[in-house]
Amino acid sequence: MSGSPKKILLSNDDGIFAPGIAALYEQISKLGDVTVVAPSGEQSAVGHAITLSDPLRVFPFHKNGIFFGHAVNGTPADCVKIAYWALLNEKPDLVVSGVNQGSNAGINAIYSGTVSAATEGAILGIPSFAVSLASWSDSNFNYAAELARNIAEKVLQNGLPEGVLLNVNVPALPREEIAGIRVTRQGQSKYEEHFDKRRDPANRTYYWLTGKKIEVEQDLDVDDYAISQNYVAVTPLQYDLTSYNFLETLKTWQFR
Amino acid sequence: MSGSPKKILLSNDDGIFAPGIAALYEQISKLGDVTVVAPSGEQSAVGHAITLSDPLRVFPFHKNGIFFGHAVNGTPADCVKIAYWALLNEKPDLVVSGVNQGSNAGINAIYSGTVSAATEGAILGIPSFAVSLASWSDSNFNYAAELARNIAEKVLQNGLPEGVLLNVNVPALPREEIAGIRVTRQGQSKYEEHFDKRRDPANRTYYWLTGKKIEVEQDLDVDDYAISQNYVAVTPLQYDLTSYNFLETLKTWQFR
Repeated sequence: MSGSPKKILLSNDDGIFAPGIAALYEQISKLGDVTVVAPSGEQSAVGHAITLSDPLRVFPFHKNGIFFGHAVNGTPADCVKIAYWALLNEKPDLVVSGVNQGSNAGINAIYSGTVSAATEGAILGIPSFAVSLASWSDSNFNYAAELARNIAEKVLQNGLPEGVLLNVNVPALPREEIAGIRVTRQGQSKYEEHFDKRRDPANRTYYWLTGKKIEVEQDLDVDDYAISQNYVAVTPLQYDLTSYNFLETLKTWQFR
Repeated sequence: MSGSPKKILLSNDDGIFAPGIAALYEQISKLGDVTVVAPSGEQSAVGHAITLSDPLRVFPFHKNGIFFGHAVNGTPADCVKIAYWALLNEKPDLVVSGVNQGSNAGINAIYSGTVSAATEGAILGIPSFAVSLASWSDSNFNYAAELARNIAEKVLQNGLPEGVLLNVNVPALPREEIAGIRVTRQGQSKYEEHFDKRRDPANRTYYWLTGKKIEVEQDLDVDDYAISQNYVAVTPLQYDLTSYNFLETLKTWQFR
């Protein structure tokens, strides 16, 4: 890569204070000028939410006494929008979102704030990807962040087609135990969900959502199965949700 | 239709008190046994959010002294999940979400709580559709609700393919001014957005998001253009986000 330094925007959904975005910053800042714009609080499972009914505020966030980035009291999609339209002077060359704590493979991609930040980047015409560590407890983001740097180099070199982003999910394993990197499709495993019905101290009912995966496609071309077999899964996603397969059939329905 | 009455679940994102869901209830209850499970507060532009970090509560909501439905302190997707897994005794035959105040055509589909309720229904294997009135001010939901009943009959008769839902957007016009009903694809118009930078009474900066559409594909096969030409737009959507077009090219990238 030559010319002026690349401008790279980082965001996430775990919050600007999260260790995953710090690990990402350490690696991605080797590639260019990095700006961090991330939620001031945890925003997991917010889907592709944007804030319309409340004002957004932007605060400087410092780490060890040094300015690290802009904290926004909004969602990941808000962060990318406000960075693009209000905070940055130039259009970024790349948006990277993560490293998320927890997999965003399979159906989780549609609930994921991490993915939504990358989607928002793609909507704005910026090559974008999301990267997640497939564990809720293991917080060693080193390999995932190094891999993100490699993928960032590829994306900066090759670009991405209009309307396409990448969703990268990394097994929580030491680098030497990673089986390889696979290009995959989004898995469609179902969840058996359960709402745990409890009583609060005032004897009022409340519910907590829990769930477990009940069906996994055993195919290394599917993101969540590839991860279970120790592969990194790189899935190209799009935000044109049209079901082109069903379009022609639907036209035969006699609407009145 | 014959046999036992159809079980139909209604939800929305404007909240259980909104006039759009009341209009929908009036029409859809002619088709079978309707259960309403909807957010207790307005949940617009929440995307496909689910509530993981807070307990959910369910309250009976009465209208004119009569039980109308279950109000949930969560998102539209939460409502459909908790209805399916905790509140209903039987799997519904149909999920209908709306009638939303405001268009969910084009890129708005990905920010839409209304669409997310129907997506959640589809994920659970239930034929589902969302219906929205393409106006932020006109609150005459009568035609949209009648049309929703007609579409509900079609969906109950024909079913929908696995993983497909319908996104119906209705111009805010009297029935006699509707040009027709078109099967469309999701528009990809861009928005020129703006964050209005203001000062609060304590002289702190805050931002409000505003935006206007800057590019419309002038094609009656595209949802938002069809609506602008007074057509109802019926768009089949899917939640498999994989960009199959880019998959093979991506496989040629040399990841390391």
